[in-house]
Amino acid sequence: MQSTEVLKTIPLFNGLTEQQLTDLARIIAERNFKKGENIFAEGDDGVGFYILAEGQVKIYKLSVEGKEQILHIFGPGEPFAEAAVFTGRSFPAYADAMQNSKTFFLPRQAFVELIEANPSLAMNMLGALSMRLKKFAGMIEALSLKEVPGRLASHLLLLSEQQGSSDFPLNISKTQLASLLGTIPETLSRIFNRLNSKGYIESSGPRVKIVDREGLEALASGEEKL
Amino acid sequence: MQSTEVLKTIPLFNGLTEQQLTDLARIIAERNFKKGENIFAEGDDGVGFYILAEGQVKIYKLSVEGKEQILHIFGPGEPFAEAAVFTGRSFPAYADAMQNSKTFFLPRQAFVELIEANPSLAMNMLGALSMRLKKFAGMIEALSLKEVPGRLASHLLLLSEQQGSSDFPLNISKTQLASLLGTIPETLSRIFNRLNSKGYIESSGPRVKIVDREGLEALASGEEKL
Repeated sequence: MQSTEVLKTIPLFNGLTEQQLTDLARIIAERNFKKGENIFAEGDDGVGFYILAEGQVKIYKLSVEGKEQILHIFGPGEPFAEAAVFTGRSFPAYADAMQNSKTFFLPRQAFVELIEANPSLAMNMLGALSMRLKKFAGMIEALSLKEVPGRLASHLLLLSEQQGSSDFPLNISKTQLASLLGTIPETLSRIFNRLNSKGYIESSGPRVKIVDREGLEALASGEEKL
Repeated sequence: MQSTEVLKTIPLFNGLTEQQLTDLARIIAERNFKKGENIFAEGDDGVGFYILAEGQVKIYKLSVEGKEQILHIFGPGEPFAEAAVFTGRSFPAYADAMQNSKTFFLPRQAFVELIEANPSLAMNMLGALSMRLKKFAGMIEALSLKEVPGRLASHLLLLSEQQGSSDFPLNISKTQLASLLGTIPETLSRIFNRLNSKGYIESSGPRVKIVDREGLEALASGEEKL
């Protein structure tokens, strides 16, 4: 595949014009790796990121005993190490080719210069990522609304028991609580709002007061749905 | 709240340095809206986006009969219309204040100039969004691995029946299929790989051959898990 063809298929570059794709293709270098070959090591300078055109790449960490912990396996059409490279950090893990692999390497410095000369490139990428994030947030909400209300109800009942009162403060931030329950803060807020409006609890800021304990117990056991 | 304080709490600006936050705060204009007041209309030029500091804002479309369809309700700390503004499009919907609201307005043109002068601002934002996307993709995977294999099994059995054969092509792209099943292409690929390695199917590219029909039926009915 030509590099512009590969670039086009990547969500990161979804919003780019033909001209911007051509500009990007110009700073890209093809790099090939044999099966088993190392691509970068943890701690190496994040001098650029890769787009896998053919083959398979594993990203892994090494434990203190030297044991390999695979974090991710990438296939054709996927970029890797881009988040670290954007933020200018060193590579946070190792990457090895698991098969003979063809990659396109995007050097950080040339990419920065391209954005400087052509900020609309960055704007279009920010737009594409923002839209993808919105879509993903919507999916997480749809997926997690089924189970998270029950888990939140259990959590609130547990907190109430631990603190020996129906009126208690949350002991962690809502962002941490969202993560604990397997959802995102936006969805958690929406669930709190519904628990309030349906009369299960009264909450404001970090304080929660349980109003309908039996209702919460029914939610927690799955007998009732929010 | 000060504008830099609000900016700091927004995931979009998570990766920014203090200096970059100060630069951003300089191009921001406070705009206040009364309860019920319109903020922008569908089709208006996307001249800038908003960050809600206080209050509540609804984003909605109007049907041909003039009926309001609410797409989203935003609360304090949330940006809105940023995706449209990044990509330079007009506003895709209406926005009204549902309560007296304080917003920070980020004009597109000044933002583009800031990126031009300081591409690392864009790089840090791209980094923060990329990391959030990775996190969201991981959550979608964790949430959807529970139910998507069963839904995929049902879908494959249905296709096989429609086409009167155990060996048939998928009639839509894997991206469309992922969306239909409520997951993302990355997770769908992983599920296909597992179905192959566990001997349920043999698939390559768009072709699927059902090898273990009873197994697929058990997955589809929820009797078995992948």
